[in-house]
Amino acid sequence: MSADNTSQQINKTIRKDVEKIVDKCDIEDICAQCDAASNKTVSYCRCWKSKKFPFCDGSHNAWNKETGDNVGPLVITKKQA
Amino acid sequence: MSADNTSQQINKTIRKDVEKIVDKCDIEDICAQCDAASNKTVSYCRCWKSKKFPFCDGSHNAWNKETGDNVGPLVITKKQA
Repeated sequence: MSADNTSQQINKTIRKDVEKIVDKCDIEDICAQCDAASNKTVSYCRCWKSKKFPFCDGSHNAWNKETGDNVGPLVITKKQA
Repeated sequence: MSADNTSQQINKTIRKDVEKIVDKCDIEDICAQCDAASNKTVSYCRCWKSKKFPFCDGSHNAWNKETGDNVGPLVITKKQA
């Protein structure tokens, strides 16, 4: 693995001591989080810059502006109130 | 935005015509997908390399091997059978 490849890493800071970051969530827990949220929504980070990872904190906006990228979160909503 | 910044983009290929890729999913639909899956699980891509984006297809493994990164999917599971 060349130095050049390492510089391409998507995740520069989050849990770098972990070999592969897989976040497992039970849908029942997500349901409860949606219920607790005013907008009935839970957003998950996909830019690996969020300070609240695995949840989105909007960091993708600054990243996209800086690099011209177009990444954004996975947004889970709950229809029935 | 310098050429160097553009080379840092996380997403090199997916829907590059879209300004910001936000995937919105209803939890009810995810529930149905979990039910339909043999392992009661739905995995969402966070490495932006999946051919089945927004779903994971395991592409993060080759990426991690190539770059020494440690990214992986968001895995949603359903407890009650």
